[in-house]
Amino acid sequence: MSITSSSPLEVAKAASISSKDLAILPAEARNHALTAIHGALRSAKDTILAANAKDLEAATTAAADGQLSRSILKRLDLGRKGKWKDMLQGILDVRDLDDPVGKITLRTRLDEELVLERVTCPIGVLLIIFEARPEVIANIASLAIKSGNAAILKGGKESTESFIAISTAISDALAETAVPNASIQLLTTRDVIPTLLELDRYIDLVIPRGSNELVSYIKHKTRIPVLGHADGLCSIYIHADADPDMAVKVLLDAKLGYPAACNAVETLLVDEAAISAILPAVAEALLLKGVSLRCDTLSKAGLSMCLSEAQAAILQDSSEEDYETEFLELILAIKTIPSTTFPTASVDVAIAHINAHSSKHTDAILTKSSDIAHRFQAGVDSACVFWNTSTRMADGMRFGFGTEVGISTNKIHARGPVGLEGLMIYKYFINGNGQVAGEYFEGEGGKAWKHERLPLGV
Amino acid sequence: MSITSSSPLEVAKAASISSKDLAILPAEARNHALTAIHGALRSAKDTILAANAKDLEAATTAAADGQLSRSILKRLDLGRKGKWKDMLQGILDVRDLDDPVGKITLRTRLDEELVLERVTCPIGVLLIIFEARPEVIANIASLAIKSGNAAILKGGKESTESFIAISTAISDALAETAVPNASIQLLTTRDVIPTLLELDRYIDLVIPRGSNELVSYIKHKTRIPVLGHADGLCSIYIHADADPDMAVKVLLDAKLGYPAACNAVETLLVDEAAISAILPAVAEALLLKGVSLRCDTLSKAGLSMCLSEAQAAILQDSSEEDYETEFLELILAIKTIPSTTFPTASVDVAIAHINAHSSKHTDAILTKSSDIAHRFQAGVDSACVFWNTSTRMADGMRFGFGTEVGISTNKIHARGPVGLEGLMIYKYFINGNGQVAGEYFEGEGGKAWKHERLPLGV
Repeated sequence: MSITSSSPLEVAKAASISSKDLAILPAEARNHALTAIHGALRSAKDTILAANAKDLEAATTAAADGQLSRSILKRLDLGRKGKWKDMLQGILDVRDLDDPVGKITLRTRLDEELVLERVTCPIGVLLIIFEARPEVIANIASLAIKSGNAAILKGGKESTESFIAISTAISDALAETAVPNASIQLLTTRDVIPTLLELDRYIDLVIPRGSNELVSYIKHKTRIPVLGHADGLCSIYIHADADPDMAVKVLLDAKLGYPAACNAVETLLVDEAAISAILPAVAEALLLKGVSLRCDTLSKAGLSMCLSEAQAAILQDSSEEDYETEFLELILAIKTIPSTTFPTASVDVAIAHINAHSSKHTDAILTKSSDIAHRFQAGVDSACVFWNTSTRMADGMRFGFGTEVGISTNKIHARGPVGLEGLMIYKYFINGNGQVAGEYFEGEGGKAWKHERLPLGV
Repeated sequence: MSITSSSPLEVAKAASISSKDLAILPAEARNHALTAIHGALRSAKDTILAANAKDLEAATTAAADGQLSRSILKRLDLGRKGKWKDMLQGILDVRDLDDPVGKITLRTRLDEELVLERVTCPIGVLLIIFEARPEVIANIASLAIKSGNAAILKGGKESTESFIAISTAISDALAETAVPNASIQLLTTRDVIPTLLELDRYIDLVIPRGSNELVSYIKHKTRIPVLGHADGLCSIYIHADADPDMAVKVLLDAKLGYPAACNAVETLLVDEAAISAILPAVAEALLLKGVSLRCDTLSKAGLSMCLSEAQAAILQDSSEEDYETEFLELILAIKTIPSTTFPTASVDVAIAHINAHSSKHTDAILTKSSDIAHRFQAGVDSACVFWNTSTRMADGMRFGFGTEVGISTNKIHARGPVGLEGLMIYKYFINGNGQVAGEYFEGEGGKAWKHERLPLGV
């Protein structure tokens, strides 16, 4: 790893060259590098936390002056309960995952002594642009090295001191390993992003992690594929037969667990038949926690009859825009799904609302019926479609991926939480014995394709 | 299927709506539609070939006036030997492939009664832009319906009559099936491409099939992901220990099988040690077939000593540009890889040349050594890396994919010949019982993740 103020072009070229060497390193060499990084970070804990304290001090001043939001302060702080430990454990978790490189995912006998294989390999060079969270460097470096990809990192300026301290430790650790130094490069110079985004000859994938504005800006500025999500407009649909206690529990978790997260719920869809039976308990619990509820006419009327006068008085009216809005704070838009006599009609209306309004990130249904749940899961066109659980489950660590480089709302390549597998692509090999395409044709003297599927294995 | 002159926006919206219905159709319904298309095309053979004859007549006139290249004429002609039969057989081959929809590719027990599944699903709406070849409509329609994707087709104007005749037959056939009519739409209006390329809200993937210029234009004009290849600069590397007869056979196939194809060889790399032992026979055979050889100094000097005076006299000198050029005609650039005493040094030089100059499409090595071949396959960063066979093997039909929507030189999603699998993405499902993210934490009262991998199956 190197901390560099080289030109973007030099950085991208160095990454491209390193990526070729890194791609053919054996798993042991890559795993050894992760062990070394883990050890180096543990040893440098005091130095890193001291650097982080400087960032925090500067950020606290900026926040006091109103130049920085308080939520960034929280994300900056490496000393928060569990954060340091999780960061170190994440490195070992990634190290201990199966090697994603060189897996044979297709093997076909095309003819005698002519075998086609599809083998996983790294994508090449990743450009990761992120905001304040300092632990992201360790996550990304682990995933990149494990997957055999070179990475160029550009972090938010609020964490500069922390980034440099972490990178120095990683750099020293990697110097003793077979992983090329330029495999992971941290850029500290400013204003390099526009130039980097033009270097599609050297950079294969851009992964932005941060605000909607950051991601949208990057998507509009580059022809390099971008993996990530701008919006996280997640919905939960309460079917008429949902368990009321479960609805309260799930909604509290989905709205309050981390309101600024992309997997927090923003829209609640409720069957008309559930408005008096299930919604009041949910609304009461959310109102008690300070959540503003923006209701359509039917749900507001229904709730007003069931809630206390004080609570009914603070219900708000929703606008159409509310169903398109990722609030990222203690606001929830509520919409009624009309009751019908046709049993699947209401779930179809909910599906249509979600497909028209959601950001294809994560949506959930609460129902006792597996038929209704399967219809919902088949019909909703989102990366994650959950049944009887919280949208907050959409997370690489929770999914068992060790950590994640981000959550993708793309429709190609990788969708949802992206771990190691999303950083891989494949090559096709054919191992032959001099056969050529022109020998295979119908009619006299022509050879025929066998196309016999062979067992996989490594 | 519909032939439409609606506005691009209406077409894209209709495709998006149909795609949701198509995505949840069972395999039997999609397969039945392919059987119906096959039958309809067979019945309409005379009508379609008559329409194709009109296209051919107009194109022949245009070619005589010098307004159209003769190679397009060949591609237009549905009456060419085997073409009609292959087109019909392709539909049945695709129908008989495994259903790519709803395959479970990951299953993890997160906790008791909390199971994560990753399930394949269609991407959504494909926009396929192609040039003159009329049979492409049948290929694409088959792959789209089988994979559950809606498709918008825009073909080259030289094939308009053929396209309309084929589309009419397909449209009539689909009207009797459960596949929504707007699942496959053929656009006949002109100048719609720029508008379509802006509709990233409705269109998920663009697949251009045609000239370098067409593909490059599209890649620069859209934010929708583009799957395909602009260039096909393929190389073959003859290692010192290659079999001379195999080298002749493979080079003749790779250069002459279809010189205008993207998988034809354009650059020949030859070990210095093979210049007198192997290259003369290869060069002689290629020269006899009318291939111009553009040689670097060493290979030209070596060949001049071994070939007849007449053949030596027509050898040409290569420029650096020749090693960056996709000739698509009977020209081959030859470059010498210097001999060294270090056994793997020459293959490393060949790998470095290919990684610097090739278009990441298909490259091949001829060698008796499996060590050298594996080093080459690991090191070359191309979609297809072949050992002892022709670059022309890079083809979806030859790979056993039934047919292909194209060959991708992308580094993400799908690489090489793209069949059904490249048209799929996945969703993550969690089937829970009311568990929420906030319950899982370390310490007293917290639950722990199980992350137990479960067997797959459907």
